[in-house]
Amino acid sequence: MEGREPMAKKVAIIGGGAAGIDVLELLLRGKMDSKNIEISLFKKEKEGFFSMCGLPFALQGMCSMKDLNIIDPSFYISKGIDFRISTEVTGINLENMYIHLNSGEEISYDYLVLAIGSKPLIPAISGTNLENVYTLGGREDGELIDTAINAKETRNVLIIGGGWIGLQTAVAVSDKGKKTLVVEKYPYILPAVLDTDMASIVQKYIGDDITFVLGRSVDVIKGIQHVESVTVGGEDFPADLVLISAGMRPNVDIAEKAGIKIGKSGGIVTDWTLRVKKGNSFLDNVYAIGDCVEVIDAVTYNPRLSQLASTALIQARVITNNILGIKSTYKPCLSPTVANIAGLQVGSVGVTTETATRYGLQIKVGKAIKYTRAKYFPGKKTIMAKLIFEAYTQNLMGAQIVSEETVAERINELTLGIRLGITAKDIWMRERCFDPSHTVVEDVIVDAAMKAFGS
Amino acid sequence: MEGREPMAKKVAIIGGGAAGIDVLELLLRGKMDSKNIEISLFKKEKEGFFSMCGLPFALQGMCSMKDLNIIDPSFYISKGIDFRISTEVTGINLENMYIHLNSGEEISYDYLVLAIGSKPLIPAISGTNLENVYTLGGREDGELIDTAINAKETRNVLIIGGGWIGLQTAVAVSDKGKKTLVVEKYPYILPAVLDTDMASIVQKYIGDDITFVLGRSVDVIKGIQHVESVTVGGEDFPADLVLISAGMRPNVDIAEKAGIKIGKSGGIVTDWTLRVKKGNSFLDNVYAIGDCVEVIDAVTYNPRLSQLASTALIQARVITNNILGIKSTYKPCLSPTVANIAGLQVGSVGVTTETATRYGLQIKVGKAIKYTRAKYFPGKKTIMAKLIFEAYTQNLMGAQIVSEETVAERINELTLGIRLGITAKDIWMRERCFDPSHTVVEDVIVDAAMKAFGS
Repeated sequence: MEGREPMAKKVAIIGGGAAGIDVLELLLRGKMDSKNIEISLFKKEKEGFFSMCGLPFALQGMCSMKDLNIIDPSFYISKGIDFRISTEVTGINLENMYIHLNSGEEISYDYLVLAIGSKPLIPAISGTNLENVYTLGGREDGELIDTAINAKETRNVLIIGGGWIGLQTAVAVSDKGKKTLVVEKYPYILPAVLDTDMASIVQKYIGDDITFVLGRSVDVIKGIQHVESVTVGGEDFPADLVLISAGMRPNVDIAEKAGIKIGKSGGIVTDWTLRVKKGNSFLDNVYAIGDCVEVIDAVTYNPRLSQLASTALIQARVITNNILGIKSTYKPCLSPTVANIAGLQVGSVGVTTETATRYGLQIKVGKAIKYTRAKYFPGKKTIMAKLIFEAYTQNLMGAQIVSEETVAERINELTLGIRLGITAKDIWMRERCFDPSHTVVEDVIVDAAMKAFGS
Repeated sequence: MEGREPMAKKVAIIGGGAAGIDVLELLLRGKMDSKNIEISLFKKEKEGFFSMCGLPFALQGMCSMKDLNIIDPSFYISKGIDFRISTEVTGINLENMYIHLNSGEEISYDYLVLAIGSKPLIPAISGTNLENVYTLGGREDGELIDTAINAKETRNVLIIGGGWIGLQTAVAVSDKGKKTLVVEKYPYILPAVLDTDMASIVQKYIGDDITFVLGRSVDVIKGIQHVESVTVGGEDFPADLVLISAGMRPNVDIAEKAGIKIGKSGGIVTDWTLRVKKGNSFLDNVYAIGDCVEVIDAVTYNPRLSQLASTALIQARVITNNILGIKSTYKPCLSPTVANIAGLQVGSVGVTTETATRYGLQIKVGKAIKYTRAKYFPGKKTIMAKLIFEAYTQNLMGAQIVSEETVAERINELTLGIRLGITAKDIWMRERCFDPSHTVVEDVIVDAAMKAFGS
């Protein structure tokens, strides 16, 4: 590379999903015009950056698939980045600090960033390799599914998994007039983020166009070459298209092969600076980020995954700072989430009742239902909130909110609240801004906090 | 009153605006079915509870004036409250614990709550008593103005004061096709809550249908019987309707007459439990709340007013708790505000640059402009944020946000943040929930915090 100074540090990033691209972007911001960092990025996909989070909306026709190809590789190449698409990293040599590519090339590094992502979890049942059985792991999957759900021959679509992606895809499919069925092994949808009562509100909102089979697992996917039906808890359902959306597992094979420690959750173990572990020590110059990383939960202090673009962004700040010489640590993770399901905003942060109970936490719960705007105001929406507090300290530990508007922002507020240790009383004794055209004077979260502990 | 127990405590509330009604409602909630509290409320207006905050929207035709008469007196009377409309309290005898009514009646109390509100500030100029010169102090004013602005003869409307109410009314008037002019003595609109740069964004949004005369004061209102013109900084503007919207001053005459201490701001002085002061001590059983009270600012620690329904609600909780025997204190005030101006949400909390400078605070400011949703998402809105930090500690001290959506919720989040002492770094190193259909992964407030201090 022209103009490179002799002391330039080489940063190699493996993976070009949101996590890898975040590190790349922040390094570019951080190094500005100086030439003391040389960045390379290797990804097996064929595009620069594709917004996975936008995929369910493209399937729903709310935006175009093309718009999700947000950044072209040429953009990064023009910035002096060695940005390689269609490139697989086949091995990591931690001792001698280089990586192997599928081309046979070896690339040396001073810093290595593992943004190696996740891959769809395929249930151990037969029939998953039949034609028209899909997973949703990237742009190419998205395009295949888009074509398949728009095909005339597709009449019965069965989706395995009632999480965000499963439901958003179910809505897309159902809106195209296909018979749509969602199978979830838990007895309610969105079990990772909602309790059963809140989940049933979401299910009711989605309506009867989508059939739900809850609390039952898939036994087998049947068909000759092409999928024909799916057996769920002993019962057969016709299906000419199946989407497996049963979660994503960290894609850590290459890391594990190099001797990097994998945690209980299946993600890569790191310290607070996000450095990976080998043997008994953390490596000075190898970081992991995103879907492939194990985080520590900020409420239960147990390891888990947080496979969100928003988690990756904060981790990218930590890694970039550390590479640039600014000490930075990643705090235990709260994973606030929100998703638009058929126009309903469904948000969650912290523990659910189910998680709290599993970890032996004593909780008090408050639930409320209100309007988002003054009663007399046109356009007001219903909003429901469930807040989960530690019973003795009255500290907020979790929140679930559902409405057609302003859910994300309340989740962000409560995320800050959990992080800073607010109590139920802090919620109802704190002033909130008021204008009858878009708020109420006594917010739904105030009401929910009061219901948990009285006023 | 039937069934009254001998030990019942008598609580008298003077004033039936949001503040008085909040105390009444919370006492009703708090006492439940017990009979140990006897409540009376005296108000000079003719209605039970009228939503003043809704008035600008009724003038704009977004809701009906009738809908703002939210609660009828009969509702409270049926609950056993001695609820008296059209009743003026003419005196307070603190020593013997009773109040005088205009009817000559004397009402004794164990606890007295002064929710005596505020009245429009009338500039000391001539012509304010001419016909068609209005203030906006209550339901009756609202009805008069509604009729006046709808009258065919009304062609030129001049509004004195470029605060929330002035602007919202200007929008209502202008929408009816009247020539509308707003006079503000500060060189920019909304000077109490915005800096000049943010104010100019709001002004641009409002558009050219409304004329602004800024940085000039009104000299005189002219006319014979009926208003004809207004002289502003030496220049004459035709006006057949004038609205004086130059702020509200605490309506404390009756309190002052009783010897209750009034502060620098013009509001009633209280301690942290909201008890009023007479001579050198705070009275055990007399509280003040709402527009008539002086609060302590949570950033500058100087006394000021906070004439908001949302402030009154929190103060009502404190007073009600104290009356019911639950010790409760009112914290220094942050007064988060938001107002819908012509469809634009304008929010503010904490200090403005102007206030910070006036109090000698050293600040760093960050400003950003982003979308509310992913770039590729339809329906996205522009959002602008200005954050004000203390320069050395990097603590957040103020925020101004403007957009067509989700401003109120960000103001609430930042209110919590200021209260709990978050820094700029706390803003950009904290995860926020993300869904491209209604958020972006790097929020406008994150960007603004980074711009104040770099990343």
